[in-house]
Amino acid sequence: MLIQCVPNFSEGRDTAAIAAIAGAIGAAAGVRVVDCSADADHHRTVVTFLGEPAAVVEAAVAGAAEAVRRIDLTQHRGEHPRLGAVDVVPFVPVGETGMEACVEAAHCAGERMAAELGLPVYFYEAAAVRPDRTALPAIRGGGFNALRGAPLEGARAPDLGPTQLHPTAGAVVVGARGPLTAFNVNLRTADVAIARQIARRIRERDGGLVGVRALGLELPSRGMVQVSVNVTQPDRVPLYRVLELVRLEAARHGVLVAGTELVGACRLEELLEVARFALGMHDLNARQILDLAVVEMGG
Amino acid sequence: MLIQCVPNFSEGRDTAAIAAIAGAIGAAAGVRVVDCSADADHHRTVVTFLGEPAAVVEAAVAGAAEAVRRIDLTQHRGEHPRLGAVDVVPFVPVGETGMEACVEAAHCAGERMAAELGLPVYFYEAAAVRPDRTALPAIRGGGFNALRGAPLEGARAPDLGPTQLHPTAGAVVVGARGPLTAFNVNLRTADVAIARQIARRIRERDGGLVGVRALGLELPSRGMVQVSVNVTQPDRVPLYRVLELVRLEAARHGVLVAGTELVGACRLEELLEVARFALGMHDLNARQILDLAVVEMGG
Repeated sequence: MLIQCVPNFSEGRDTAAIAAIAGAIGAAAGVRVVDCSADADHHRTVVTFLGEPAAVVEAAVAGAAEAVRRIDLTQHRGEHPRLGAVDVVPFVPVGETGMEACVEAAHCAGERMAAELGLPVYFYEAAAVRPDRTALPAIRGGGFNALRGAPLEGARAPDLGPTQLHPTAGAVVVGARGPLTAFNVNLRTADVAIARQIARRIRERDGGLVGVRALGLELPSRGMVQVSVNVTQPDRVPLYRVLELVRLEAARHGVLVAGTELVGACRLEELLEVARFALGMHDLNARQILDLAVVEMGG
Repeated sequence: MLIQCVPNFSEGRDTAAIAAIAGAIGAAAGVRVVDCSADADHHRTVVTFLGEPAAVVEAAVAGAAEAVRRIDLTQHRGEHPRLGAVDVVPFVPVGETGMEACVEAAHCAGERMAAELGLPVYFYEAAAVRPDRTALPAIRGGGFNALRGAPLEGARAPDLGPTQLHPTAGAVVVGARGPLTAFNVNLRTADVAIARQIARRIRERDGGLVGVRALGLELPSRGMVQVSVNVTQPDRVPLYRVLELVRLEAARHGVLVAGTELVGACRLEELLEVARFALGMHDLNARQILDLAVVEMGG
């Protein structure tokens, strides 16, 4: 029974720290690190790994411990919103695994992060223990800087752990959810207002695609801006549709798409859907991808 | 050590015969049938399967035997050129397997098809035993109808087996080659002259893309025509480039692309390249496809 874990850490520049965090995860017995996507402008790293639930919990706690040791949010200036050094830790079912196993893993990991690392813990989505705590952006709120020093009470009270932020590592949001595809579209302009306007036009909240969350961010190191997208219903909203909508809205401003990035991993089916669209290859199916059969045969 | 075999059979309509042929292949111990693509207009079926060399040879001979029993080329009217009931049997390296293993498998399978099935056998590409017999289209020549009854002598003499075509099953071309991607582009016109003209414009022989072979065919059952493409250097010539070139040339005639078809299987890398193009996702790599890691972990 495999589950996937995709912790996001608020460090995207210090390669030694990133390697230490990913190394702590990969050193846990029985897990496989699939991807480690670090972004200097976001100042954030997303690690994707797989394993049996107990092994994944162990690895997630080890990665969080390393992040708490390494990351000081009081010194942090990055484009991406954040509440903690280990900012969000989602557990995701793989294959036939049910969501309950991920909820259990999230609660177990959250308990350990509160007890062993002294972090306030908020549970979200399928692992939420309060009905007003399902959506991640609402829990993250104004982020670390807005909440520093203030007591975490009332609506801000954590589900577990201390009632104030860890002085350097903030708090952690732990949860269980279905697949989510993180996808960035970089634009050939330095005007972040354009990225923000496009983000509003394509996201569900403001009249865009169902399940799409989007932010406009600056990419100072590249002299560009970015529409950073979370596709929370990737089986219904294919990546090409998100991109083409961004492209359309960017064209209003005479801005071209410089490229896109997949943050972390996605499922083969999402790529197949892109190929079906791009090639008009309507009947393409996963059985036609030789690599899967080869790996299944042990080749 | 895995190899792939992709026999093409001259039967695309009789579902019982197709099932019997694919069943004979799949019944061989140690092989896995990845795909079975039957096309009624081509009147042709392409079976893709994998296994260790000895098992693959056994399965290829079993499939050929069933095809010889089931298919009568004297009654055959299909769009695709053909020389035999089992028309061409390529063996293809997988992963780290070398071409020598495929040459050996081809020679072994060819010997058995000559001896056990009474078929004239021509070896092609890496398995060729005569220097003028590397290219498949040249060996196939005018096909079954042109060679019926005539003695197979001189330039037409087979490498193994009888010196005249099998009365109902013709001859077989057996070989070893690198990966080849078979890809059809269907056009919204019934004018086959347009498909033939586009085929000439995109294929290497007439000034098109390197390693591309193409034919214009009618699709009577669909009221359309097709540019049927073999990409013989798929690592250098991605599918999107072939499609976009067909689309450009079709636009000269005001003809739209109705869709495309992958015949058989392709490697994941080819799909990744399509996604890199379609999404501008320049850094996409195979490690980001979760399914592969899941299968490797046995999930």
